[in-house]
Amino acid sequence: MAKITVIGAGAMGSAFTKPIADNGNDVRLWGSPLDNSIIDSLKAGKNHPKHNYPLPKSVKFFYHNELAEALKDTDVVVMAITSDALGTVFEQVVPYLKPGMLVGSVTKGFNYDKSGKIVLLPNILAERLPSRLKQQIDFVFVAGPCKAIEVLWGVPTSVTYASTNIKAAVKLRTLAETEVYNIDTTDDVTSTELCAAMKNAYCVGLGMAEGFPQQKGGFLHKNTKGALFTYAVTEMGIFAKALGGTLGPVLGLPGMGDLELTGEAGRNRTLGEAIGSGLSASQAIAKMKENDITVEGYPAIKFGYLLMKSLEKEGKIPSASMPLLSGLYDILYNDAAGYESIKKLVKLCTAANISNRKM
Amino acid sequence: MAKITVIGAGAMGSAFTKPIADNGNDVRLWGSPLDNSIIDSLKAGKNHPKHNYPLPKSVKFFYHNELAEALKDTDVVVMAITSDALGTVFEQVVPYLKPGMLVGSVTKGFNYDKSGKIVLLPNILAERLPSRLKQQIDFVFVAGPCKAIEVLWGVPTSVTYASTNIKAAVKLRTLAETEVYNIDTTDDVTSTELCAAMKNAYCVGLGMAEGFPQQKGGFLHKNTKGALFTYAVTEMGIFAKALGGTLGPVLGLPGMGDLELTGEAGRNRTLGEAIGSGLSASQAIAKMKENDITVEGYPAIKFGYLLMKSLEKEGKIPSASMPLLSGLYDILYNDAAGYESIKKLVKLCTAANISNRKM
Repeated sequence: MAKITVIGAGAMGSAFTKPIADNGNDVRLWGSPLDNSIIDSLKAGKNHPKHNYPLPKSVKFFYHNELAEALKDTDVVVMAITSDALGTVFEQVVPYLKPGMLVGSVTKGFNYDKSGKIVLLPNILAERLPSRLKQQIDFVFVAGPCKAIEVLWGVPTSVTYASTNIKAAVKLRTLAETEVYNIDTTDDVTSTELCAAMKNAYCVGLGMAEGFPQQKGGFLHKNTKGALFTYAVTEMGIFAKALGGTLGPVLGLPGMGDLELTGEAGRNRTLGEAIGSGLSASQAIAKMKENDITVEGYPAIKFGYLLMKSLEKEGKIPSASMPLLSGLYDILYNDAAGYESIKKLVKLCTAANISNRKM
Repeated sequence: MAKITVIGAGAMGSAFTKPIADNGNDVRLWGSPLDNSIIDSLKAGKNHPKHNYPLPKSVKFFYHNELAEALKDTDVVVMAITSDALGTVFEQVVPYLKPGMLVGSVTKGFNYDKSGKIVLLPNILAERLPSRLKQQIDFVFVAGPCKAIEVLWGVPTSVTYASTNIKAAVKLRTLAETEVYNIDTTDDVTSTELCAAMKNAYCVGLGMAEGFPQQKGGFLHKNTKGALFTYAVTEMGIFAKALGGTLGPVLGLPGMGDLELTGEAGRNRTLGEAIGSGLSASQAIAKMKENDITVEGYPAIKFGYLLMKSLEKEGKIPSASMPLLSGLYDILYNDAAGYESIKKLVKLCTAANISNRKM
């Protein structure tokens, strides 16, 4: 067993303490400056406020000004910070990293790297590693159908740990796997992280199908959702391959599995439902901003679309081979009409005749 | 345009009249002896009783003793009969078939062929074709995420038409495709029909995850459902390949797409939920029989399991490579405990490490 420090005490970071603590590791949970009230509660022996559920008793809690103590002699650091803050928080962690340590990450999404290029989060971490640590630290990325609170509850769960060094993924699996928290491993970080980011984007489309009954006399549109689901997974496959990844994670837990879960409920679906009910995207986004709700799928559609466009320019994706993402971008960023757009997109996507692919 | 006779006036057969009538075909709907009251309603200009929604005005309706009139000069026959009655009803149709006619089928499932072997429905039709018609009639099979009533409502839908002669599938597509009813085509009948049958079986497993909160203090098990969904599609792929099919339909509308839809609601899911809530399978089945509810997934689990076992014996499937289907069989036919079984199955399935497949 090992000393493991989780950086970020939000929903996923705190839930991740459950399997690793159950496994007998020495677990420390560090709260960012935004997590002070969470750490207050936890230090007082109360439930985690976001989960309204207790964390394992053996976990030790640290305020943001106790980073050195939280990281003292630690073997594994797990980043559980929102995608926009991941880089700056990781910069605070870097001085404490030593050769041989593992860095895990449960954060998902895209961001701009230091040169202004759109990248997946593994690049955000890697570019912040000083030369003394290059090749000395392995990164492991976590994805798959995994609601944080269900991990805390001990619900049977399967996730994927991805690392370019599969031995590192296997090592973290050994530390984290329990009777109910199951882990598979892959060396395909690109495809895993692409799915982790894009499933939120496509889920907004699935949500629209759930919202259509509100503008169509109560008539369900489950057929439409089933079609969109199929085409979303297909496009994640095209996207992953263009970035140098494989279909393994797309057709595994990070892609198909997590899209299924994400389509069941949550903020991405709610945004889609609002548009499906007849609001323009501008109206739907304004409404969510009023209520201080951030939706990961919204920026993911833009990042994903722009990245796809640049891959098209480089000749890595055939032109117009990802109509669904293009259509979602038009709906979300150009206020294209949700219902009419989705109707056309289903037709466009069907024309690609994916059921006859020879695989 | 063509003369098209739909055989069977149940939910799917009657809904199928919508796109073909909208497309200007001469459409006849024949009711089986069980459909008399449906034909009564339709002839009287009333709604279809199962859909509580009107059929297109141009459709002509025929009682079971009017088969000759229904099939007079017809170009296309579409079988829409329950899987257990498909063979005997098709035998009544055969005398009217002429070389060059198309036979479509929206029926899904397994059955025993005349030699007692478990087969998919294409075999049930093919073995009833007299020698004068062999190679003279093309069959086209319909699958994909498609609730009948939503087709009737005109909801955007995508389905797959499969035929060993792809030109036949394309021909039927030309007759049936509309602005909202979209069709892709494949020559992989085996994989398409395997998915059409097995998605009902696996959906019973997804339903269990929906039922678990009832025996686990209200705690949702969406993580479990997402994992089961992924492993179900994976096993359909193993199964399809063992039967000589490809992954195209599995990762297209008939497999992934229809499993997503089927997992949203319906009888297969309801049976799973009852077991997930804590009933034994025997209790859950007895309860559904009391209410005269038949569940396609229940026999599909048995047919699928037995077929898988015989493929194992023939060396076409590696032993123990489909743990989820085996586990579902144990739960449904040996009253294995639902929760503990699924917990173990998620672990077993995760160990296959599918996210690292190189595809």
